[in-house]
Amino acid sequence: MIKKLIDQITKKESPIVVGLDPTLVILPEHLLPGAGVSGEAYLEKVGEAVFEFNNRIVDSTYDLIPAVKPQIAMYEQFGIPGLIAFKKTVDYCHEKDLVVIGDIKRGDIGSTSASYAVAHLGAVDAGGEKIAVFDEDFATVNPYLGTDGIKPFVDVCKEHDKGIFVLVKTSNPSSGEFQDQILSSTKKPLYEYVGQMVEKWGEDVREGNYSDVGAVVGATYPEMGKVLRELMPHTYILVPGYGAQGGTGADLKYFFDADGLGAIINSSRGIIAAYKNDKYKDRFSAENYGDAARAAVEDMKKDIKENALAG
Amino acid sequence: MIKKLIDQITKKESPIVVGLDPTLVILPEHLLPGAGVSGEAYLEKVGEAVFEFNNRIVDSTYDLIPAVKPQIAMYEQFGIPGLIAFKKTVDYCHEKDLVVIGDIKRGDIGSTSASYAVAHLGAVDAGGEKIAVFDEDFATVNPYLGTDGIKPFVDVCKEHDKGIFVLVKTSNPSSGEFQDQILSSTKKPLYEYVGQMVEKWGEDVREGNYSDVGAVVGATYPEMGKVLRELMPHTYILVPGYGAQGGTGADLKYFFDADGLGAIINSSRGIIAAYKNDKYKDRFSAENYGDAARAAVEDMKKDIKENALAG
Repeated sequence: MIKKLIDQITKKESPIVVGLDPTLVILPEHLLPGAGVSGEAYLEKVGEAVFEFNNRIVDSTYDLIPAVKPQIAMYEQFGIPGLIAFKKTVDYCHEKDLVVIGDIKRGDIGSTSASYAVAHLGAVDAGGEKIAVFDEDFATVNPYLGTDGIKPFVDVCKEHDKGIFVLVKTSNPSSGEFQDQILSSTKKPLYEYVGQMVEKWGEDVREGNYSDVGAVVGATYPEMGKVLRELMPHTYILVPGYGAQGGTGADLKYFFDADGLGAIINSSRGIIAAYKNDKYKDRFSAENYGDAARAAVEDMKKDIKENALAG
Repeated sequence: MIKKLIDQITKKESPIVVGLDPTLVILPEHLLPGAGVSGEAYLEKVGEAVFEFNNRIVDSTYDLIPAVKPQIAMYEQFGIPGLIAFKKTVDYCHEKDLVVIGDIKRGDIGSTSASYAVAHLGAVDAGGEKIAVFDEDFATVNPYLGTDGIKPFVDVCKEHDKGIFVLVKTSNPSSGEFQDQILSSTKKPLYEYVGQMVEKWGEDVREGNYSDVGAVVGATYPEMGKVLRELMPHTYILVPGYGAQGGTGADLKYFFDADGLGAIINSSRGIIAAYKNDKYKDRFSAENYGDAARAAVEDMKKDIKENALAG
């Protein structure tokens, strides 16, 4: 699957993933259920609104981007109707030939991790027929439980040509509490050791220079990104934290390899809520949130080209 | 919520949680869809079978146990019908006044963790009405992202009187890869530092001696349990790994405080698949899986009383 992702990045000259993380605050007023609707009926309407919203974002940007990253928590909060919208979003993105990175941050042990892997990347046995129930192309995975938690995902990746991105150094302010702890054994931070394990977990699932086991490293920590880029030569890096969380184009240059590959940058609110952003809100109304998203993708593409990939 | 859990443990003299983790291998033949059913229809039938299975397990054991722990991965693998069965199971357990620990091992940053917390422990705003979409009483949470990932859960716990159990030292063989790493700053393993943070995260949400922020520590590591028990005096410990994973009653004594409180022991397959176990299968047919589960709970209760709590 990493090959498909790279092909799309190369074809569209765009190492960008759009985070499809709709919330009640981001959805434009005109998509929300009208007054008088409440309770379960409201959640069903919100589920439909979420899908409609994503649909337009995808229609407005799919020719510019290789991938999308729906954050499942934002769907899970609306219960079953939200998860139906998640699945419909995944399917619609596939119709547009986008690579879908399910930001699910799952991770458990043995047969439990295997169940998550089957649910999100594989296919469950349904009376002799195989059904891919959520059917993402990549999933994000938490490494805290060690190889037992990762291996079942890698096995499913191998069988179904899918991929994972393992959390290594996350973009949030407190990510250092545990991830930056210096280990006695290596005299290096924990996240570097996790990065080395990610490189190792991917050994068996390489397609060309990169493997189907990628890493998540936040744009907010560029110096650490530089070290990790060197430590993990066969590992694609998914970089959250650009835009709304503070990462800039210039911060991103260390995440890429010399050939301009090796990293894909996520922006969520910066794209999907562009219509609310000071930079775009005079040009685009709430009804034109799709066009605002497209303008934001074009600006992000330019920023990365000029500040991260130039020279 | 920890107070409710302790009250139930005390009333039923039973520090036991039954893991409701049904799989296609565990469900008795007679509950599975008949020949000729496949595809989406099969998954819907399986969803119904899972709920029916849980229903009987609960009916057969609820008077002996304080709590259940459905593992959401086992439901997620069946897609939307599986998640509907999860929610119906949670609701049914509440009817029987059981405390429900959602084994979801979620964890993300800021607003994303908040969305998971709302989905599983809180209530989402649905047009002026508040809906608790999954409505567990406790959730398991992964600490790798640090305080940013935990705080939104604690906030929801405070608002809705719910609780969490944070992964500290998991029961699986490779849990040591990262969790046992000795930190330069403390000269102690990472899991001890995580345990200290758990104790701190719970400071604000104590009810009596214990807080609503608990810890997960595997029965398979009793010596580490002993250290953690002392390091986290206000932290309830959820102990997986008893039975099928190898933990014994004698291994559990270190997880309890002197008053016999402080720990709750999970068994999943050992109870719900007891009807397939050599120890019970002569006495109970597959149709009587509920009675087999009850016998297994009684034996587990005795084992804990005699080997973990005696003396």
